[in-house]
Amino acid sequence: MDILVVGSVAFDSVETPFGQVDEVLGGSATYFSTSASFFTGLKLVAVVGEDFPEEPKEFLSQRGVDLDGLQTRPGQTFRWKGRYGFDLNEAHTLETHLNVFESFHPELPSHYRDAEYVFLANIDPELQLEVLKQIKRPKLVACDTMNFWIEGKKEALVRTLGHVDILLINESEVRQLAGEANLVKAARAILAMGPSSLVVKRGEYGVLVFREHSIFSAPAYPLEEVFDPTGAGDTFAGGFMGYLASTDNISESTIRKASVFGSVMASFTVEDFSLNRLRQISWPDIEERFRKFQALTEFEGLG
Amino acid sequence: MDILVVGSVAFDSVETPFGQVDEVLGGSATYFSTSASFFTGLKLVAVVGEDFPEEPKEFLSQRGVDLDGLQTRPGQTFRWKGRYGFDLNEAHTLETHLNVFESFHPELPSHYRDAEYVFLANIDPELQLEVLKQIKRPKLVACDTMNFWIEGKKEALVRTLGHVDILLINESEVRQLAGEANLVKAARAILAMGPSSLVVKRGEYGVLVFREHSIFSAPAYPLEEVFDPTGAGDTFAGGFMGYLASTDNISESTIRKASVFGSVMASFTVEDFSLNRLRQISWPDIEERFRKFQALTEFEGLG
Repeated sequence: MDILVVGSVAFDSVETPFGQVDEVLGGSATYFSTSASFFTGLKLVAVVGEDFPEEPKEFLSQRGVDLDGLQTRPGQTFRWKGRYGFDLNEAHTLETHLNVFESFHPELPSHYRDAEYVFLANIDPELQLEVLKQIKRPKLVACDTMNFWIEGKKEALVRTLGHVDILLINESEVRQLAGEANLVKAARAILAMGPSSLVVKRGEYGVLVFREHSIFSAPAYPLEEVFDPTGAGDTFAGGFMGYLASTDNISESTIRKASVFGSVMASFTVEDFSLNRLRQISWPDIEERFRKFQALTEFEGLG
Repeated sequence: MDILVVGSVAFDSVETPFGQVDEVLGGSATYFSTSASFFTGLKLVAVVGEDFPEEPKEFLSQRGVDLDGLQTRPGQTFRWKGRYGFDLNEAHTLETHLNVFESFHPELPSHYRDAEYVFLANIDPELQLEVLKQIKRPKLVACDTMNFWIEGKKEALVRTLGHVDILLINESEVRQLAGEANLVKAARAILAMGPSSLVVKRGEYGVLVFREHSIFSAPAYPLEEVFDPTGAGDTFAGGFMGYLASTDNISESTIRKASVFGSVMASFTVEDFSLNRLRQISWPDIEERFRKFQALTEFEGLG
């Protein structure tokens, strides 16, 4: 099953203690699509400016990403500039230029409207709803959001969550959205808003997946070289949704395995700037790292 | 196999967002012994003042803790006062009164000197060395330490580590001791100082166990009620060492299972103040929670 993804395509300028890059390819839809493309086909909905070059479009097309939903509008492409200190868990935004993204309204080409697997990356929850209205009968809808929308558009966000099966957000956002300091109680409150699964992203500590009757914990892989965490969350979502869509199965055990594939993909992204590492790997690398996650977490039962 | 433990016996006064207690039983040797007593016998080395009552001694004796090495000295027992905010990962010390602990020198009764399993809780590394000198042929030595000794007595600490098999410390202390921000590199640097295993304690994020050729990740159990994290680290160490000593086996797979037992025991301690929760549980509770850890971490392999 293909996945429809709506989100940003951007140029990022990033400084970390290990180096810096200027105006490299980024954006939530880009990271998500590249990651998911190892598992399934994609249909992308986003906007770029007239300054957007051909190479990234060719790259995405070659990876099986349908770009019929990528609008090109007069003006500049979305740009983000950020810095990380040694605590790579926290990004400090230096500059945000929304440019053409400011007036973005997602428009789905007619052949996108049959999509069954949908990922709504972190955009205005009203736009997330606009997308859902254009889709006939989605089978699985996952979405991301951020503190900015929880603070400024909580009502629209809660409306969106009523149509969402899986919410993927950061740990601090779980507490903020629920207004509850205890993570388990906060997760239960969010599941009551609609989603049947809540994926709590904890950066270098991995993820927790809360469902009505279960909790699953997947660690992040402890890496010797972490260059740049930008895009790790969207890369996780791409591996996670990619595996679910490829199996067309959303059972508990598939969701657990999907969480590990998400963590595997994110562990590659952070090893280099931009999509550099994802551009280098192939399926055997993914399988090898999946087995490392098994080795990382295995222990004998009580018998 | 019995475990010899040297550490503190104290009275703690603790405030958390969920309540407060005054002068309740605490101390590293107390938490460690109570936790380990579910798995094996113990020989305790510590000091208390003349104010120390009979009840805690009877409690520990009944749990199979040999108190021949518990000195009683003129003066008051060690007292600690601390506060936790909603971020239960960080204790704010309000008062520390070392009292009789200030001039403590561990003296091992002769029948302690054959100990094979040894846990050196967080005390002055010079005292940790004094203990090791009094033991004939230890089979497994584990120890804890803290930022205070890393800053003030690094040379003595590094000497101690030359005689230690397993070091259990907090994540920030791993980075501090190694002088390296990347956790994997820092762990390798510490393994080069002597220990064959390094257990990195990450509070609500669980533990990572680094060994020469492997890394193991065990989560902490996501709890709906976390009352007081005081003693969680020593309780972990008690379950961890208790299981190792009970099997008299220090293979990779035993160390992994021991880490899960440590996490199980710590998950009980934080559910109430002081040793209250550990005083209530029995072996079936431990087994039940171990199975919950399995359910929390299980996922299907690639096949």
